[in-house]
Formats: sequence, C-alpha cells, structure tokens
Amino acid sequence: MDVAHRRRLLAELLGTALLLAVVIGSGIMAERLSGGNVALALLANTLATVGGLYVLIEVFGPVSGAHFNPAVSLVMTWRGALPRSQLLPYVLAQLTGAVLGAWLAHLMFDATLLQLSAKVRSGPGQWVAEAVATAGLLLVILRAPPARVAAIVACYIGAAYWFTASTSFANPAAAFGRMFSDSFAGISPASVPGFVAAQLVGAGLGALLDRQLGD
Amino acid sequence: MDVAHRRRLLAELLGTALLLAVVIGSGIMAERLSGGNVALALLANTLATVGGLYVLIEVFGPVSGAHFNPAVSLVMTWRGALPRSQLLPYVLAQLTGAVLGAWLAHLMFDATLLQLSAKVRSGPGQWVAEAVATAGLLLVILRAPPARVAAIVACYIGAAYWFTASTSFANPAAAFGRMFSDSFAGISPASVPGFVAAQLVGAGLGALLDRQLGD
Amino acid sequence: MDVAHRRRLLAELLGTALLLAVVIGSGIMAERLSGGNVALALLANTLATVGGLYVLIEVFGPVSGAHFNPAVSLVMTWRGALPRSQLLPYVLAQLTGAVLGAWLAHLMFDATLLQLSAKVRSGPGQWVAEAVATAGLLLVILRAPPARVAAIVACYIGAAYWFTASTSFANPAAAFGRMFSDSFAGISPASVPGFVAAQLVGAGLGALLDRQLGD
Amino acid sequence: MDVAHRRRLLAELLGTALLLAVVIGSGIMAERLSGGNVALALLANTLATVGGLYVLIEVFGPVSGAHFNPAVSLVMTWRGALPRSQLLPYVLAQLTGAVLGAWLAHLMFDATLLQLSAKVRSGPGQWVAEAVATAGLLLVILRAPPARVAAIVACYIGAAYWFTASTSFANPAAAFGRMFSDSFAGISPASVPGFVAAQLVGAGLGALLDRQLGD
Repeated sequence: MDVAHRRRLLAELLGTALLLAVVIGSGIMAERLSGGNVALALLANTLATVGGLYVLIEVFGPVSGAHFNPAVSLVMTWRGALPRSQLLPYVLAQLTGAVLGAWLAHLMFDATLLQLSAKVRSGPGQWVAEAVATAGLLLVILRAPPARVAAIVACYIGAAYWFTASTSFANPAAAFGRMFSDSFAGISPASVPGFVAAQLVGAGLGALLDRQLGD
Repeated sequence: MDVAHRRRLLAELLGTALLLAVVIGSGIMAERLSGGNVALALLANTLATVGGLYVLIEVFGPVSGAHFNPAVSLVMTWRGALPRSQLLPYVLAQLTGAVLGAWLAHLMFDATLLQLSAKVRSGPGQWVAEAVATAGLLLVILRAPPARVAAIVACYIGAAYWFTASTSFANPAAAFGRMFSDSFAGISPASVPGFVAAQLVGAGLGALLDRQLGD
Repeated sequence: MDVAHRRRLLAELLGTALLLAVVIGSGIMAERLSGGNVALALLANTLATVGGLYVLIEVFGPVSGAHFNPAVSLVMTWRGALPRSQLLPYVLAQLTGAVLGAWLAHLMFDATLLQLSAKVRSGPGQWVAEAVATAGLLLVILRAPPARVAAIVACYIGAAYWFTASTSFANPAAAFGRMFSDSFAGISPASVPGFVAAQLVGAGLGALLDRQLGD
Repeated sequence: MDVAHRRRLLAELLGTALLLAVVIGSGIMAERLSGGNVALALLANTLATVGGLYVLIEVFGPVSGAHFNPAVSLVMTWRGALPRSQLLPYVLAQLTGAVLGAWLAHLMFDATLLQLSAKVRSGPGQWVAEAVATAGLLLVILRAPPARVAAIVACYIGAAYWFTASTSFANPAAAFGRMFSDSFAGISPASVPGFVAAQLVGAGLGALLDRQLGD
C-alpha cells in the first residue's frame, strides 16, 4: 500500500470516527442537559452536526474526498471517480471509524464502552424518509459547486435532520456506528438493515436524478 | 420541448417540491417534538428552511435560476430575464411541485396523504406582512451579488419568518402547496387568495424599489 | 441633489427602516410565541437580526456603504471616507428610517402605531456594555476584509446581543427608533441619551484602537 | 520592541480579552435569562462563541495570526511558524488578555470584579474530552484552507462545545481566564492543571496526526 493510499484510508477512518463522535457525543450532551425537551435536544444535536460535518469535509476533503459514507463511495465508484480497487478499503475504513467514533463518545462521557441501541427505527415512513434523505444527499454532492460543497452538504444534513421523519441518517456507516450506542442518536441492530436498504435505493435514485438534470 | 427546457422545468418542479417538503416536513417534526412550545417549533422550522433553501438554490440555480416561486418568475419575465413563453410552464411546474412536496412530507411522516389546512391566516396585518416580505425578497434577489445570492436569499427568508407577522410565505406556490397540509405550516384555502394578492403587490413594489436604487 | 446622492440617502433610509423592522418585528414575534421564556425569545431575536443585518449590508452596501448608524457615519466622515457635506443628510435619513421601521413592525403585527417604550435600560454596567459594543463594532467595520464585511458585522452583532449586558444596541439610530416601540426591543426615552453618549465614546475608542493596530 | 511586534502582542491581548469576554459574558447572560434550562443556556453560549470567535479571527488574524491560545502558539513555534523569541511574549499577552476579558464581562454585568470559580471540572472523561478537543482544534488549524480558516475554526469550537464532555475549553489561556469567573463558564482553580495538561497532550497529538496525513 503506497503512502497516498494509506493517507486516504486514514482520512476516511479518522473523519468517519470524528463524525460519529460528533453525532453521538452531542446527542448524549443534549439529552443530559435538555431535561426531556426533545425538540431542544434535536436542535443542539443538529447544530453540532452541521458545524462538525462542515469542518470535517473541509479538513479531510483534499485528502480522501471526505466520503465518510459507503453509499457515496459506491456511487463514486460507479461514476469512475473512485477506483474499483479502493471501494472495499474505503468502506472498511468507514465502518471501522464509525465504531471507534461511537466508543470515543462513550469514553468522553464516562459511559459504558460497549453498548447496543434499543431504539427501534422502522416502518414505511422511516424507510421512505431514508431513501429521500440519501437521494437528496447524492444529488447535492454531485451537483454542488466544488468550492462550497462542504457548507452545502452540511446545511443539507442539518435541514434533513428535521424534514425527514428519520432524522436523516443517509449513511450506512452512520447507521452501523450508531447501532453501538444506546443513546439519543442510537438505532437498534434490527432496524439497521431496513435503513441501509432504503439508503442504497435512495443513493441510486439521487444518481439517476442527477443524470436527468444534465451537466 | 428541447432537452434544456425540459431540464429547467424538472429543476423547478423538483426544487419546489423539495422546498415544500422541507417547510412542511420540518414543521411537522417541530410540532411533534416541541410539546406546544411554539417559539421553539418555529425556530427549528426556520433553521431547517434556511439550510434547505440555501442548498436548493445552490443546486438548482445553474439549471433553472431556482425561482421556485411564480412571483419571482413573473418579475423575471417582466425584466426580460425569462422568455415570455416559459412563464406559464415555469408556474405550472412550481405549483405541481408544491403539491407533490406536501404529499412527500405526509408520506414520510405517516400522515394522511390528502389534507386541507384549517389554519386561518388573514387580516390587514398579515397582508401587509406578505407584501413587505415579498417586496423584500424581490429586492434581495434583484440586488444580491450573484456569487452569494443563495446564502443571502436563505438568510432573508430566515429573518422574515420572524420579523413579518405572517412568517413570510412570500411565494404563491408555497401558499398553494401549504394549503394541502393541515399541519404547523398549513394555510386554509380561504386564506390563500388574500396572501397571493398581497404577494403580487409586494413583488411589484420590490421591483420598483430596485429601479429607484439604480444599477 | 444629484441622482447618486438621492440613491445613497434612499438606501440609508430604507436599510435602517428594514433593520429596525427586523429587530422590533422579530422581538414582537418572539415575545408572543415564547410564553415568557426570555432566553428563547432573545435567541430568536438574535438569529433574525443576524440574518437580516447580513442581507441588508450585502444589498445596500454597494449603494451607500450600508452604515444605518450615525456613529459609523461620524467615524467615516472623520476618516475622510464620507464627505462632510453628506454627514447630516445620512444621519437624518437613518433617524427617519429608524422610526418608519418601528411603525412598519407595528403595522404588520396589528399593534398601535404610535408607542413609547417604558423599558428602562440604565446604569454603569449598561453604559460600559454599550461603549464596548460600539468600540467592537467600529473595530470590526474598519478592519474586516471588505469581501466578507457583511457576514463579519452580522456575526459580531449576534455575539454582542449576548456578551454585552445591554444586548448591544451600538447604534444611536437604533436607540432612537426602538424608543418608539413598547415591546421586547424597546428602550424608554429617558434611557436613550445615556446609551447614545456611551455609543459615541465607544465609537471613538474603536477608531483609536484601529489606529494602534496599524494597517 | 519594534512597532510590528508591539502590534502583534496588542492583537493577541485584545483578541484573547474579547474572546473571554464573549465566552463568559454570554454565559452570564444565558444563565440569567434561561431560568435553569441548561441546554438552552449552552446553546446561546455556543452561538455567541461561534459568532464572536469567527469575527475575532477575521479581524486579528492578519495582525498576529489570531492564536489567542498558548497551545496553538507552542505548536506554531515547534513548526517554525512563530519565532522562538516570540513564544513567551505571546503566551503572556494571551494570559493577561484572558484575565482582563473575564473582568470586562463582570464589569458589564454589574458583577463583583474579582471572583474565583467553584465549578469542579475533573475526571478521566473530562480529560479525554479536552485532549480530543485540542487535538481536533490543532488538526483543523493546521489543515483548513487559509481563506476559510476563521469560519472553520469557529464551527469546530461550536460543535466541540457539544460533542466533548468538557464543553471544549481546548485552550490553556481560556482555562486560566475562566478560573477568575464564578459563573456559567467558570472552572475551579484546582481543575485547571488537569485541563491544561490534557490540552497540551491533545495539541501534540493533533500536530502528529497532521503529519500522518501529509501535505
């Protein structure tokens, strides 16, 4: 493995870990401080995620493209923007990073390291929401002006936390990592396959819509 | 219909649909989570709208101009920036998109698809507010530096959600689509004509003020 | 009066009017919706002000410099950036705009047009706060990179709503206009002279600090 | 001491003072207005800090680099970006500014000038959080595109207020200054050494990670 390739994988692993630490950590902080006011907790969780995601894309984008998301890497491979041989390493780095990020959040908040979420997220509305969220994310990534893509993607996810019924995971690695945290941002293992399937359908839909809109 | 024209209409339809899905969907989420705290619900609804609108203008602007709004298309036609022959197709795409966006929000939140709002929004204060909101919107669209127009328009709408008494619809297609949702962001069908009339007056006022300020 | 001069004054009048309508209008909306939760009301008032101020500087800056503030116009005259002969017209346009903006807010919210605030804002802490707020504002205006001055000034005012004890009027025209509104953002007429004096001291201090820091 | 050097130190002192005034002042305001709703208080404190920090880096960056943080100055010296002879003066200016900023906040809010915080912030979770927060801060500072570094650093700190268990001091001068305020943002003197040690470890870790990721 050459140096550039190793750096790309380190960026994907580190970026996905920090993204999950932001999402889960801010969820724990928000839940602890908000005294049961769920709207306020989700608002704080949203703003932390928007700020954190913006920063991570700016910082790691020049190294690896800042996918942090297997659905994005898959579409990028399909379009020839990521070499086929790098798809599996990218996805493994993302999944590993996601779990490490969950554990890092637990470590900082003095919580049990190993957890499994009991939060059921399921049903047609949730699945449509994940498909819509991921279709929108791909459309945004593929069409945003490159100079502003970090801000645009972060704002999209912030809006999608509220306008989709699922609070927009839109990322199989995020679903995987959040499975390991029984906190505000968690998702029960049994709910993960439905989410991932909906996300992959949505990613394909987003890539097709992008084609329809032309260059 | 040539390809470029079809893409413009697809962008207007898709963009308006997503805008309405953001406004209505985040309103439903905010209402469900906020436990009757209306200020908190409107704050979440505002931030989701600002983020979503910014993204939609960045993404669809290069294709269609990202009007998503018949009052904007009308002023653009009057100024020669949109060919007369495209005005009606643009408006039809916007109105169709608006209704589809409302339905998409209902689908995601497991709500009844077909709804009509019972929320009366009427009276002189509300109409003045809609005229002011739309005048301001046109002034902003016509005078913002093109490179930052997406952020500027989004911030304007965010401020206008709070400083106008009507929470600033400022868009006949938005009023039309929100009529079909009996939720936080809804408007009763009987209130729509007053809103649209005020918006058109405001749009004209905004275009005139722009003239007074020169190039 | 030539056309360019008339346009500059129209921009100052219109911009200051809209700024006051944003500050007062969003204050009324926030107070009505927040059910006595003052922190939440001020948060909404802050975000609307930040968004609105950013937009107004972007839109009117190229016409008049977007002062909207006699203390800024005074310092600009002292530095030779505004001709002496334009100082008085600028200030009169700002004061007139401020009152019209307060009335526009009342009109939209179906409130009595003519009001006087009963909210006392006085004492050494408040005056130090206004001096600090205005010194910071001038330092920011004089040193911000021109391409980003609108965003930087808006963010400064947003922070200053919270870090100064006076919620940062930092503007004699704002103090004048807010005197005419007995609402969340109001200030009693008797408190205005103290605020204006502190603001002028602060403006001078900011201009001096800018000198110390060099070009 | 030549003029340029004096200006750099003035910028570090003034910038750190204003940063601390923002953090502590907005904390006091938030605590007073929020009626015990800690999540809402931290949200307001966060937004004020993000806005204020963004402005301060934009304004003072061209003069001194806008470190406002001994851990940053230390890493910059290690990398040859700050002359060795300037490290101690920079740190002294930062520490002095931090205390003056705390006192300025107290002055504005009519609070006792001289205070010592009683808020214990201690334990493994807090220390890991400070190391993570500071490692992330250095990584961000060293890798952000220079044209957007102010916005990126400010967004990072905003996210870190929520995703780290310690609310992310990430700055020995901030810990030093906040020790002198028995308010929302305070830290007891006995907790400062642990925080500073964790921050220095984190700063080193961030600089090493930056190396691993290459140019």
